[in-house]
Amino acid sequence: MSTVWTDRFATRTRGVTSSQIRELLKFTQKPGMISFGGGLPAPEVFPVQRFQDACHKVLTEQSDTSLQYGETEGYRPLRELIANYTAREGVNAKVENVLITSGSQQALDLIGKLFINEGDCVLVEAPTYLGALQAFNVYGATYESVASDQNGMCTDLLQEPLRSNPKFIYVLPNFQNPGGTTLSEERRHQLVLLAERYGVPILEDDPYGQLRYEGKHLPPLIALDHHNLHPAGGYSIGNVIYLSTFSKTLAPGLRVGWIVAPPEIIGKLTQLKQGADLHTSTFNQFVAYEVAREGFLEQHVQLIRKIYRERRDVMLQALTQFFPPEVTWTHPHGGLFLWVTLPQGSDMPAIFNSALEQNVAFVPGDSFFAKSNHERNNGCEARRHMRLNFSNAAPDQIREGVRRLAAAVKANLCGTLIPSEPPLEARQSRD
Amino acid sequence: MSTVWTDRFATRTRGVTSSQIRELLKFTQKPGMISFGGGLPAPEVFPVQRFQDACHKVLTEQSDTSLQYGETEGYRPLRELIANYTAREGVNAKVENVLITSGSQQALDLIGKLFINEGDCVLVEAPTYLGALQAFNVYGATYESVASDQNGMCTDLLQEPLRSNPKFIYVLPNFQNPGGTTLSEERRHQLVLLAERYGVPILEDDPYGQLRYEGKHLPPLIALDHHNLHPAGGYSIGNVIYLSTFSKTLAPGLRVGWIVAPPEIIGKLTQLKQGADLHTSTFNQFVAYEVAREGFLEQHVQLIRKIYRERRDVMLQALTQFFPPEVTWTHPHGGLFLWVTLPQGSDMPAIFNSALEQNVAFVPGDSFFAKSNHERNNGCEARRHMRLNFSNAAPDQIREGVRRLAAAVKANLCGTLIPSEPPLEARQSRD
Repeated sequence: MSTVWTDRFATRTRGVTSSQIRELLKFTQKPGMISFGGGLPAPEVFPVQRFQDACHKVLTEQSDTSLQYGETEGYRPLRELIANYTAREGVNAKVENVLITSGSQQALDLIGKLFINEGDCVLVEAPTYLGALQAFNVYGATYESVASDQNGMCTDLLQEPLRSNPKFIYVLPNFQNPGGTTLSEERRHQLVLLAERYGVPILEDDPYGQLRYEGKHLPPLIALDHHNLHPAGGYSIGNVIYLSTFSKTLAPGLRVGWIVAPPEIIGKLTQLKQGADLHTSTFNQFVAYEVAREGFLEQHVQLIRKIYRERRDVMLQALTQFFPPEVTWTHPHGGLFLWVTLPQGSDMPAIFNSALEQNVAFVPGDSFFAKSNHERNNGCEARRHMRLNFSNAAPDQIREGVRRLAAAVKANLCGTLIPSEPPLEARQSRD
Repeated sequence: MSTVWTDRFATRTRGVTSSQIRELLKFTQKPGMISFGGGLPAPEVFPVQRFQDACHKVLTEQSDTSLQYGETEGYRPLRELIANYTAREGVNAKVENVLITSGSQQALDLIGKLFINEGDCVLVEAPTYLGALQAFNVYGATYESVASDQNGMCTDLLQEPLRSNPKFIYVLPNFQNPGGTTLSEERRHQLVLLAERYGVPILEDDPYGQLRYEGKHLPPLIALDHHNLHPAGGYSIGNVIYLSTFSKTLAPGLRVGWIVAPPEIIGKLTQLKQGADLHTSTFNQFVAYEVAREGFLEQHVQLIRKIYRERRDVMLQALTQFFPPEVTWTHPHGGLFLWVTLPQGSDMPAIFNSALEQNVAFVPGDSFFAKSNHERNNGCEARRHMRLNFSNAAPDQIREGVRRLAAAVKANLCGTLIPSEPPLEARQSRD
């Protein structure tokens, strides 16, 4: 099977592997499978009629421009809409601060391309978003991980790693993926202050910020950066780059995300985007604009909140009902995920296989830990976790899925007390 | 305007600049401008009603999957359609040989990422597609350029550069961008044989192959690779990677392109695409499939050929009528471009400015020459050319645009005889 191409891979690709989550997506199409694996929105909340109307209008009135090549920066009315949307947070954002990307995954790739030299260190939370690690790995990033708790990244642990001058801090303050935790207001202030003091910039990734189910909305880091308080001239000198997306509020199939940053950075990212894909689909940008405009986005988010809040509550209830007392989990105030922690010594690969056999899928937690320069999370720690998604399955499926998952977990918890494990079948029959 | 971000650009971005063409797109929106600058299809050939029907059908019948996340490899029915489409050329392509990309620009980026180490040499035509240079530059590519004539890349000049073992050969055999030239059948065979003999793989970029206006269709390089003649098992060990796109046959605003390659290479590219943008817009892939299927693509291409052939003929006629005899140009058998060569010593920046003032735009040729390791094209040579697009403007506009352009050229040809140039205004008034 070898070809002259196969001998010629660039060195940067050595460590590149497929994401466990993307591979899982294939499993989850098996009939009868209940999946807590992906980060998939519920298709029931896609605003289909609004998409119908938008496609019809765009193709009737703007076919010559919406099907044509467009500017790399993005469709200007959409950039304006996003600048205004961001400005609601008190951020002095203008159209020049916004670059449209092909989903916020592309934003992560472009930022890796623009900033990361081979060997550069990125400061991340432990655990953190797997897709960011994938995007940065290919540019040769190394990592320093900072522990997090129910209030997000432990900012009191930041000073030491900041002294070694990492390239930037990557953080998901709201309903973190995978942890489901939210960075407290006090820690947000502390993080922005420390980053400023040590001269280290912040990359704020906020795909879920609008999906809050309890508690009050907290300001994004970009709104706490004092560079951003000049009313004239837009956001020109800030230390925070902010990412978001329509994937969780309209539909992921559009692949429309965005970057908010100082214009000089937007200019460089635009040059890189030219070489990467010329521009994001013009048609999808026109359609996203037609769907989101006139307050529809804000109104539609209310509906999503209602539906996902119920699903989160059903999952929390089911976990309490079915899971053994040795197991703990986070209580997310929003977003799509919660994070389950099993007792030390849990055999996660066995639980994972056992769960798949019982037609329930999740993502084992180890993928979400960066390989740190200074290893603060040993492998055992990383293998104790499961990420559960609660947005995609219907409430009765969530309940049934958690029941099956609890069976797989309990079978394994018994197993951990026995030095030599019985075969999988034997363990399963014990439940 | 400096921020802590600005000091932190990765070294790979040092040489990155914005494409002259992308910048030109902004100029060309000026009222009254006739643009031969971009590579824009004619909006009149967008199959708008078919798009209307496709969007309506996809949103009515498949909203839950078409608006959702999808597999990185692409929408399977679309991959099958493309495999079958490729198989018409005699290529034994299967669904495993196809990766859907966000336009074929993304294909170039992913291939750069997978293969190019800092300093690696890519063998290119002189001139070659600017967007490929942009995609490869960021990964540290260097170049060796091979001259081309009216029959495409001069394959008799290939042996010496092949001996130095470049990473791969990048070539556009059909209606080349920017040259408008087509690689002859004899040279196609020679190129594939030489590449095989020296163990150097070929990247074949074919965005325009279906848009032929005269002469017989020639086999793509991928169909001449003898590794590809095994009927069982698909295209598994070939030396040619093949790229194409719907941008010129359906609509560029979709951003749907593809790569045909051995499955092992598709697998690695898929891993890189995960980190780059997760996947190409699911919605656009479903829509492209609905538009292209049941022979519509083949039928629609007939219409495009008819319209573009007329525009090419009008441009060729106008060039003959208005341009001075010292100027020559290529006679493209298809595609979107032709290539004009001015006498030595022509002042291209002056012609360009003068043309813009007369409301006609083109792309100066120097952008299309790679900076070669062994400089075979001196700067003077590169500055003698203009790329003219004939697909976007209507026939009467083409005639008027060429008339204006001829005026700008003639004004400058006079100027070249005068050692110290008069100011721009003075030169223009001479026409």
